[in-house]
Amino acid sequence: MTTLEKVSANKCFEGELTKYKFKSAALGGLSANFNLFLPPNASPSTKVPVLIYLAGLTCTEDNGAQKGSFLGPASSQGIALLFPDTSPRGAGIEGEDVDWDFGTGAGFYLNATHPKYASHYNMYTHITLELPQVIEAAGNIPIDWNRQSIFGHSMGGHGALTMYLSTQKQYRSASAFAPVSNPVNCPWGQKAFTGYLQGGIAEAKAIYDATELISKSKDPVHILVDFGTADTFYKQGQLLPENFLKAARDSNYDEFQVRVRSQDGYDHSYFFISTFASDHIHFHANFLKA
Amino acid sequence: MTTLEKVSANKCFEGELTKYKFKSAALGGLSANFNLFLPPNASPSTKVPVLIYLAGLTCTEDNGAQKGSFLGPASSQGIALLFPDTSPRGAGIEGEDVDWDFGTGAGFYLNATHPKYASHYNMYTHITLELPQVIEAAGNIPIDWNRQSIFGHSMGGHGALTMYLSTQKQYRSASAFAPVSNPVNCPWGQKAFTGYLQGGIAEAKAIYDATELISKSKDPVHILVDFGTADTFYKQGQLLPENFLKAARDSNYDEFQVRVRSQDGYDHSYFFISTFASDHIHFHANFLKA
Repeated sequence: MTTLEKVSANKCFEGELTKYKFKSAALGGLSANFNLFLPPNASPSTKVPVLIYLAGLTCTEDNGAQKGSFLGPASSQGIALLFPDTSPRGAGIEGEDVDWDFGTGAGFYLNATHPKYASHYNMYTHITLELPQVIEAAGNIPIDWNRQSIFGHSMGGHGALTMYLSTQKQYRSASAFAPVSNPVNCPWGQKAFTGYLQGGIAEAKAIYDATELISKSKDPVHILVDFGTADTFYKQGQLLPENFLKAARDSNYDEFQVRVRSQDGYDHSYFFISTFASDHIHFHANFLKA
Repeated sequence: MTTLEKVSANKCFEGELTKYKFKSAALGGLSANFNLFLPPNASPSTKVPVLIYLAGLTCTEDNGAQKGSFLGPASSQGIALLFPDTSPRGAGIEGEDVDWDFGTGAGFYLNATHPKYASHYNMYTHITLELPQVIEAAGNIPIDWNRQSIFGHSMGGHGALTMYLSTQKQYRSASAFAPVSNPVNCPWGQKAFTGYLQGGIAEAKAIYDATELISKSKDPVHILVDFGTADTFYKQGQLLPENFLKAARDSNYDEFQVRVRSQDGYDHSYFFISTFASDHIHFHANFLKA
């Protein structure tokens, strides 16, 4: 029986943000943290929908909670927010702390198949399966897991889009700020996939690339993407949102199904995210509260 | 001629947050940073009012800008936000980096008179005099310095209240989150005043204690204070907002002049601040835009 340990709690916008830790089976028995915001209307008799936020490279479960400006609008809308970490911590694998864009803080939201990483680097299972199970099993956290949506930033935008498109309707909607949208074709993605996956890029194409996934998708989707034109990583070709947009249109999704907004002058920072935070909460509320 | 050097700029809520540095005369020639948010309506022909935010112990010019949730409401209201640092950096004084509540990150918004600190620890002059002069002298930053207000958190709440009450109508209004309200009677204040001031507590009473100042004040004032009942430092007696409130009422200020709100269950964190951030911006807008 997995036990959730409460690390801290802060009242915020009349709700409560709580940090938990637990021993994660998906991450090979390592201790994993997450933050959970419950809006004030959540109660044993009122389960609330949940929106999962996946952070970007170098981040933890704290960045979105502290800097995202999500808690105010989520409180107003009556939506819980779940903030997982971005990678396992302390696996002790040689070299995992050398680079900021691979290893610790850079789990890339996949399940590793390379023998060196396969025991610990399983953020895909951690987020899609383990966290809902563990939180539900705690018995006293009033979330309605039939109403989940997912969003994220940069590497976390990649995670949100690919989890949304690769799971069978587990999430009602997905959105992303400056997502790594076509990682098989960018340096960050290529480095991650060749490092974490035994089958490398070819293995990634089938499940971990949002552009590849949308090009094969036929189901109804609800996707919102924002990126900034002054984003250094966009300009470097790490994000490639146009590739995702083109693949979506080629799959006959219109702008009410897949909306990609170019935001003039905005960069990759949480200042960009906070500017459009309430838009994203309201987008997901359409589906979480439908 | 002091030159402002632009360190970084981020578009945010249609305005821009810019970090500057310059060689500060008030701080003994050390390099000083500040962040400045200009709302989208600011332009060479439209100078905007400015609200100065003073952060708490251990903080820098970044904490309020990144975690305060102030930029959205300030953008909507057309108010600039100025975020100074909390102390000089790198003065090289023996022992200044030993404690978190004294020295670096803990300038206490005063002008030191103890010979050991007097050359550098002059945050009072830095904020009330130097920053307006240096920003005005830059010539291209459209702020109307006849419309200033000030607010802050914890040690910065102390700074905001004392600068408001000790200057001659330099600021139109003051507000504070969990301010150190009567520092001559709390451990943080006593440590700071006996360390920085040759005259110690007695010297501090005349100018650096909000409760002492309000008890002698006869002018009209516009003050808002919020504190949380779950605030550890409140419970430890570091904040003493009741002393400030009592002194204000004894000076015949009513709740439309000095309002002190006890917020049930909130703590000392930026989660507390962000919850009431828009209240404080709207409070100051009443006077800055009058």
